[in-house]
Amino acid sequence: MDNFSFYNPTRIVFGKGSIANLPTQLATDQSILMLYGGGSIKKNFIYNDVKAALAGYRVIEFGGVPSNPEYEVCMQAADVVLREKIGFILAVGGGSVIDAAKFIAAVARNPQVEAWDIVSKKAPLRGALPIGVVLTLAATGSEMNNISVISRKSTQEKYAFSSDALYPQFSILDPQTTYTLPVEQIRNGLVDAFIHAGEQYMTFPNRNPLVDRQAEAIFSTLIEIAQDALRTPADYDARAAYMWCATQALNGHLRCGAPQDWATHRIGHELTALYGLAHAESLAPIWISLLRYKLEDKMEKLAQYGRRLWNLKMPDPRALAGQAIDRTEAFFNSIGMPTHLREFGVDAEAAAREIEHRFTERNVVWGENQDITPEVSAEIVRQAV
Amino acid sequence: MDNFSFYNPTRIVFGKGSIANLPTQLATDQSILMLYGGGSIKKNFIYNDVKAALAGYRVIEFGGVPSNPEYEVCMQAADVVLREKIGFILAVGGGSVIDAAKFIAAVARNPQVEAWDIVSKKAPLRGALPIGVVLTLAATGSEMNNISVISRKSTQEKYAFSSDALYPQFSILDPQTTYTLPVEQIRNGLVDAFIHAGEQYMTFPNRNPLVDRQAEAIFSTLIEIAQDALRTPADYDARAAYMWCATQALNGHLRCGAPQDWATHRIGHELTALYGLAHAESLAPIWISLLRYKLEDKMEKLAQYGRRLWNLKMPDPRALAGQAIDRTEAFFNSIGMPTHLREFGVDAEAAAREIEHRFTERNVVWGENQDITPEVSAEIVRQAV
Repeated sequence: MDNFSFYNPTRIVFGKGSIANLPTQLATDQSILMLYGGGSIKKNFIYNDVKAALAGYRVIEFGGVPSNPEYEVCMQAADVVLREKIGFILAVGGGSVIDAAKFIAAVARNPQVEAWDIVSKKAPLRGALPIGVVLTLAATGSEMNNISVISRKSTQEKYAFSSDALYPQFSILDPQTTYTLPVEQIRNGLVDAFIHAGEQYMTFPNRNPLVDRQAEAIFSTLIEIAQDALRTPADYDARAAYMWCATQALNGHLRCGAPQDWATHRIGHELTALYGLAHAESLAPIWISLLRYKLEDKMEKLAQYGRRLWNLKMPDPRALAGQAIDRTEAFFNSIGMPTHLREFGVDAEAAAREIEHRFTERNVVWGENQDITPEVSAEIVRQAV
Repeated sequence: MDNFSFYNPTRIVFGKGSIANLPTQLATDQSILMLYGGGSIKKNFIYNDVKAALAGYRVIEFGGVPSNPEYEVCMQAADVVLREKIGFILAVGGGSVIDAAKFIAAVARNPQVEAWDIVSKKAPLRGALPIGVVLTLAATGSEMNNISVISRKSTQEKYAFSSDALYPQFSILDPQTTYTLPVEQIRNGLVDAFIHAGEQYMTFPNRNPLVDRQAEAIFSTLIEIAQDALRTPADYDARAAYMWCATQALNGHLRCGAPQDWATHRIGHELTALYGLAHAESLAPIWISLLRYKLEDKMEKLAQYGRRLWNLKMPDPRALAGQAIDRTEAFFNSIGMPTHLREFGVDAEAAAREIEHRFTERNVVWGENQDITPEVSAEIVRQAV
């Protein structure tokens, strides 16, 4: 078990009707920027409930944050924050809106740095505006972490950055907000949460049994509730378990003392930047391909996962690890998630070449052993064809 | 799954040599009260390492906090805090020292209330002095929660109280600090952590699969590492897993959306107040007895636990639940923890009568169904003979 530090001050308010608790979380004298996406929150109860809860506050709305939140849009919102003397940003949405809120909050309090440098060069922050969240799509875990991922269309770039200043002060999680989501978004959220846990688990053994089992708790819960969560939108408990899994998969607990991979995310971000794939769609084919490519290095953890999660019994760990990957792929497919790039219309060979070029240019390697070179990344993309 | 809120801002610094990180967690201009217990920290590296890390700070020492921290001793320390204009309390110890630090921190900032009312009447707090922790005994989870348990010898009372003002700002967890502990304290810590998870798990099913599995992760890790942690003091990874289990068992995660029991703790606190049993010693016989007494109400969770943790296969859930309790008792016994009050020299009949009298006088009932009346508590004590 490796040394680690853990810190997560976000307050979670979870459950049915919890949007009504918004005023208990907010100081009364703040001007609030209410940030949201394409307007789906106006097609259900969310927009009205949030506005009702904010009655009495000065609220400026800023809608239209796109998925894979776009630098240019965020900068427009940052202008509004300065012009309107905003003191608090309330993100009403999923990971994209929350990530945008974090970036806008950082820009507003760090005039000393070029805004894009916060994203691309991880420029240190002097602080950030406080933010809060009303979650409407469970997937990225951004509601309870300090990470933001921002995209820039003009340069086809997408990067993650993080800072302790970016933890939301609070996040309100009402599983009922997910009832009206399209089935693909639930599928994406389930896979995203699964792979977030996977990036922190599927590495090499390091005698960290509690954290291993905490990751397995997320895998097995997602497997158990996936079909109910997909098929029955108003199955509150299935949606609640799904939502809490997504938050717990990336709130810092699973990296406590554990080696981490994240190569799938690095490659996936490039695929999204290049081809516009949804985040989870970019991860599923790459993770399955990477697990097969790295089977030898990850064999012990894959075998442990196969035994504990899929009840596999064969004595040969190599065969067991291979079978565990097959089961995972079948699980993704069973909830409607493709695991081949061609199913998304992506030319794997072209993508491999472009990603190898980009990673070579940036001089980066990935993975828990820092051995996923640009060439290896390209091969993983190629084999995800 | 029930509605819940979750908040835990304590920063954890975990690992080998982590005491050296103390200065990174402390403002330089504070006068620090260094609080500790009977002086065992002077028999190993802990005292010297803490003092070395605090070189340059104004440090006032206060040693001699007893296990089951005593009101009168805490009040003496509170006097020192006021006299010496202390700005920060550093607890160097286990649950007793940390709980004492929380109470002292509360007393120092709440002159408007009678100090014992904070404990006995849960008087609301206006704040508390900031505290930090160097953990030397993993058991109670106090290093990452807002709970304190204080005893008063003169009245044979022992109560828990809590407040969001009482979360430690940081806790430093170096598993090596446990290497020189007597084996009974490790045994007690393992059982304490197990029953903390148990109080939040062994209730009735409420479709909360992730939190169920997070509790099971703690059970299975404790079962897996208990013998190594006991027999091989310098088995770093076993001690690290044990320490992290104890913290995670009572840092708020396992009560997310879950019903809770805690009757065993209420009865156990009385046994400690009356007979001086160590906390875990008071819990083990009572929890086993309570599970048997409440087998019908807890049958479904006991059966799930039996299947998942002990690999029990019998089809009859009642038989399975009974077997699961037997296995748990055998596990406690296998690590040297008695599960009968007579083994601690306690007259169960006399204890039952006194506890029934006390609970009747206080007009309290316990348990997830609020049906553990004073009479039922007495019967549970009687059957723990």
